[in-house]
Order: sequence, then structure tokens, then C-alpha cells
Amino acid sequence: MAGAADPGARMRAEIAEQPAVLARVLRDAPVEVREVAARIRAAAPRFALLAARGTSDHAALYTKYLLEVRLGMACGLASPSTMTTYGARPDLRDVLFVGVSQSGGSPDLVESLATARRCGALTLAVTNAADSPLAQAAELHLDVRAGEELAVAATKTYTAQLLTLWLLVDALAGGNGSRAAPVPDAVAAVLRDGAAVVPDLVAPYATAGRMIVTARGFSYPTARETALKLMETSYLAAAAFSGADLLHGPLAMVSPGTPVIAVVPEGRGGDAMAPVLDRLAEREADLLVVGSAAAVDGRRGLVLPGGLDEMVSPVVQIVPLQLFARELAVARGVDPDSPRGLRKVTETW
Amino acid sequence: MAGAADPGARMRAEIAEQPAVLARVLRDAPVEVREVAARIRAAAPRFALLAARGTSDHAALYTKYLLEVRLGMACGLASPSTMTTYGARPDLRDVLFVGVSQSGGSPDLVESLATARRCGALTLAVTNAADSPLAQAAELHLDVRAGEELAVAATKTYTAQLLTLWLLVDALAGGNGSRAAPVPDAVAAVLRDGAAVVPDLVAPYATAGRMIVTARGFSYPTARETALKLMETSYLAAAAFSGADLLHGPLAMVSPGTPVIAVVPEGRGGDAMAPVLDRLAEREADLLVVGSAAAVDGRRGLVLPGGLDEMVSPVVQIVPLQLFARELAVARGVDPDSPRGLRKVTETW
Repeated sequence: MAGAADPGARMRAEIAEQPAVLARVLRDAPVEVREVAARIRAAAPRFALLAARGTSDHAALYTKYLLEVRLGMACGLASPSTMTTYGARPDLRDVLFVGVSQSGGSPDLVESLATARRCGALTLAVTNAADSPLAQAAELHLDVRAGEELAVAATKTYTAQLLTLWLLVDALAGGNGSRAAPVPDAVAAVLRDGAAVVPDLVAPYATAGRMIVTARGFSYPTARETALKLMETSYLAAAAFSGADLLHGPLAMVSPGTPVIAVVPEGRGGDAMAPVLDRLAEREADLLVVGSAAAVDGRRGLVLPGGLDEMVSPVVQIVPLQLFARELAVARGVDPDSPRGLRKVTETW
Repeated sequence: MAGAADPGARMRAEIAEQPAVLARVLRDAPVEVREVAARIRAAAPRFALLAARGTSDHAALYTKYLLEVRLGMACGLASPSTMTTYGARPDLRDVLFVGVSQSGGSPDLVESLATARRCGALTLAVTNAADSPLAQAAELHLDVRAGEELAVAATKTYTAQLLTLWLLVDALAGGNGSRAAPVPDAVAAVLRDGAAVVPDLVAPYATAGRMIVTARGFSYPTARETALKLMETSYLAAAAFSGADLLHGPLAMVSPGTPVIAVVPEGRGGDAMAPVLDRLAEREADLLVVGSAAAVDGRRGLVLPGGLDEMVSPVVQIVPLQLFARELAVARGVDPDSPRGLRKVTETW
């Protein structure tokens, strides 16, 4: 695999497509989003459950934060095995059950959503495949409009999921979607900056065996997704922790020189990282910051465009970290388009 | 720290205390458990949210599976930051909000639970400290009766949390607690077997840098807790994945010889691990199994006592893995009673 003529070419192309994909979502999704939002409002659910695996699980986690903070709706991430492996048949009246999946094809997700529907939930599938089994099993569907994704490591489908789900929650909250308008240009700017900076940022980690990624609040899914990208493409033992959870035990793993990536954007989640950054500095971690100009100041890292709403910022934050993961894999002699042991559609039961 | 006269003596003593602690829980908790169960039944919550950090978060995850499978109650794990950092004020009428914490002292958990109460939830604190701020903030309290825990790495408080929460869900489901009666003897048996076997099992990992721990369903919290123990005490980059999630990406990290611990007990969760074990064998992982006699057969590992109800088995499963973590830390020259960078009570905001 390391012998591919242009390793990571697909992943690079799909990362680069994101400004166009996100502009398309902003242009074409709102009609469908408003229809779905109207159906959800009419059903007036009291709780939401989100079911997903892999990268899509991070989009689900992001949506959980959005629903809790913007709509004041109590949420949970579903454990598909309780319905598939153990046959649980919970009372899901007044529950919105959202299945998020790029392919819409994993049998356990389809079965969970179908079971949730029989148990009384209003079901919504969010996929990049409108004719997929998951989309067909659900009453409501949102297409994330990312176009076909060929690289095994998901990139453009992830940011398209985030933006589509942001638009949905914004519509449910009575917004008009305008706060996301700067996203495509911000992603384009991050791609330009990243192309200049990321190769140098990657160099120290060419032989690293492990890495910790940390963030809080709306950016915690960014940390989770970054760790997954690093595991999938560079085979690093990368672990993500919310800044608070990191201090409850895993901090012991950090010794002088342990590589840590912190995502510290403008806003309350980034502000809440201050004590975490202090503890990491005490332990002499090798820190790389992706975040606000203030957070990166005096540190190695990459500055995100300013002025983004904290809730839409995750759509932008992940992009330099996708570049980082891809570049690091290539530096380590791995073709990130063909990670060992993985297939594009993972079927689990 | 490596120079302590008897490294890990506290952790060893607290691990060994568990049969007595669990017998005490079975003897003394039921009166309080029945009272709390009656209050919960009277309130008839439709949804449960569980909030915790660190080891207690794994007890919360276990409880989520129990509530979903045995009571058919939709559940979620709370993200404390949505209420503390972002000021979310969700509508929590008809919600049971459970805070789980050994110390009952972490400010963000206390604030989350107090906010949940103001937002209409019925609140329950499960702590090892009856006069703690968390216990005082909640309407209902369950004491886990573990006695004072001195080692930084939680052991007896974890199994006491699991058993107390199992008793609660069993009472809510109309059970009489009898299915847990074999637990103290099973833990004693596992301690005897473990003392004989664990030192040999640990030896190959004395210089390992990373480890993967995997399980499904009710045992997935065991995998999470094992990984945390390994991070806290051996500073290993240990990562836990549900068997299904492992196949969605992280499997790429597994190369020939990568250390993987699989928890494969009797029951559906263990049965559902079969395809995961196949994929790990294909990738030539270095596999260690803690589980049923059938699962361990022909592999390195440790056999759990047979005939345990799958839902109570997690109380027993973790014990040999606590022994493993402690023994490994000592083999690596670390005093697991004094992990670097950690305090017994972690305060996060």
C-alpha cells in the first residue's frame, strides 16, 4: 500500500472538495430541512436518541450538544446492541430517534431504527445515500449531499453531516440558517493555511506511537473524530478525552513530551479548556493547538478563522485535522486511502 | 514512587476487600434500594439521564444498559458541560437524573444535578459519601457502602456502584435481588484464580506501549473501566471499543502482535463477540481473553465462574482485570497507589 503512486490522493481530493460540498448543502438542503423540521415540530418530541457508529457517531454527539443547548431537549446516544443483541423494546413515544450513517447500510443501525419506529419513536435517517436501507426504514430523511465518497476515511461526509444537522436544529430553534453562511469560505481559508503549515506540524510525529486529543463542549466531537482519523490512517494509538474527563484519570498517561492536540476555539468550550492547558503544561506535554488566535499564541498550532459562531465552528475545526491526519499517514509510509483491515461500508450486527 | 516499600499495597488491599464489600451491599442496601425504587416508581419517569466522570461513568454506562434492557426505559448519558459551560436549561419533567460519583464532590456534577432538579427531573445521587455535596443536592440517595477508598485507582467503589445500581434496577423491575446472590463468592473465586494466573498473564506486556480492550453489551463498561485502570496505573495508551465500533475504523490500528484484551462472558454480549474475535485473529492480534470457559478455550486468558446472570457478570468480570492492571503497573516499576498527576478527588468545572 505504501507503494501507491500518489498515496492519499482520494482523501486529499475529498478534503479539498469540502468548500463546494458545504456551499451546496447551504444552497440545496434548506427546503428539505424545513419540511423535516415542520414534521418534528408537529410531533413535539420530548427526548431525542441518536444512533450511529464511527465518524457518524461524532456527528451524532455534536447534534446531542446542539439539541440540548439550543432546544433544551434531553438527549441520549443510543446503544444499538440493547435493541439488536438484547431485544430491548423501550417505550419510545415522544422520542425523536435519529440514525446517522454515511452509507445507511449497517444492519445493526437499520434494525435499531426500525425497532425504534415500532416502539413509537418518530424516526429520522441522516445519510449520504437517499435510497439506503436506513433512509427507507425511517419516516423522515435528510440527505447530506456530499457526493460519492471513495476514501475509506470519511471527510466530506462528516462536515456535510455536521452542517446538515446544524441546519436542522437551527430550523427547529426558529433560525434562518444565516449563522452558517461563513462556513464554506472559512473552510477554504483553513485549507489554504493548512497547506502551508500542516507539513511542518506533522514532522515531529512521524514516529510517535500515541497521541491524545482533547477539547470541551461543541468541540469534543472534533477531538473524537480527530482521534479516529489518526487511528484509521496512521495506526496511531490516538485517544480523545473531553478536557474534564482527561483530568479524571487519563492525565496520568501524559509524561514530558507526550503528544497532545488540543482544540481550543473561540467561545465557552475553548475558554473552559484553560485549566486543562495549565495541567498539560505542568506535565510538560508536547502540545499542538488548533484554535483561536489567542489560544495558539506562543504555541505550535494552527489558527482558525475568527468570528465563527461556536456552534458552527466544528464544521471548520476538523478540516485542518483531516489534513494533519492525511499528511501524517503519508509521512509514516501509509496510504490513507487504503487503511489495512477496513472496508468503506462496515457491517455490524 | 517506584521506590515505595510495597508498591500498590493499598490497591491490592482494596481489590481483596471486594467479596466483603459486595456481601455488605447485598445485606444492607436492599431497604434503602426499595425505598428509592418506590419513589422512582411513584414518579413514573419516562427517560433517564446519567451523569458521571471517570470510573463512575462506566457504572453509569452499565446502568444505561440495565435500564434499557430490563425496564425498556430510554436513557442517555448526560454531557455535564451543556448545563455548566453552556447554561442549557432542558425540560426535564418525567426524567430521572442519576449522578454517580465515588466522592460526590466534583463541582460540575453537583451543578449538573442541581440544575437538572430545577429543570424538573427527579434526582438520585449514588455515592460512597453520604454527606457529600452531590448527595445533598439530590432528592434521593443511594450509598454504595464500599468504605473509605484510599488508592487513587478506584476498585471496590466501582463494583459496589455496579451492584447497588443492579439492585435498584432489579427492584424497579420487580425482582427480589436473588440473582446477585452468587456475586461475593464468584468474586472471591476470581481473586483466588487471579492470584495464581495473573502474574504470568502480565509478563508479556511489561514493555507494551498500547493496548486495546473490547467487549459488547453489558460487558462494554468492563472494557472501558479496564482501559482507564491501565491508563491510570501503567500509563499505557489503552483504548476501549465496543466490538462493533472496533470494526468501524480502529481495527486498522491492530497489526500482528498488537495486544488486545477481549471480555467474552457467557450470554448474548459474549456471543456477539464471535465475529470480532475472528477479525482480530485474521489480523494476528495478541489476544488475551477474560470470559467463559468456551471463549478462553485454546487461548491465553482467565476463565470466569460459570452460571452467572449476564447482567450481574460485570461486577465479577472487572476483578481479574483490576488485578491485571495492578500487577502490570508494578511490573513496569510504577506504584499504582500514586499515579503521577492524579488526585483522589478530581474537581472539574
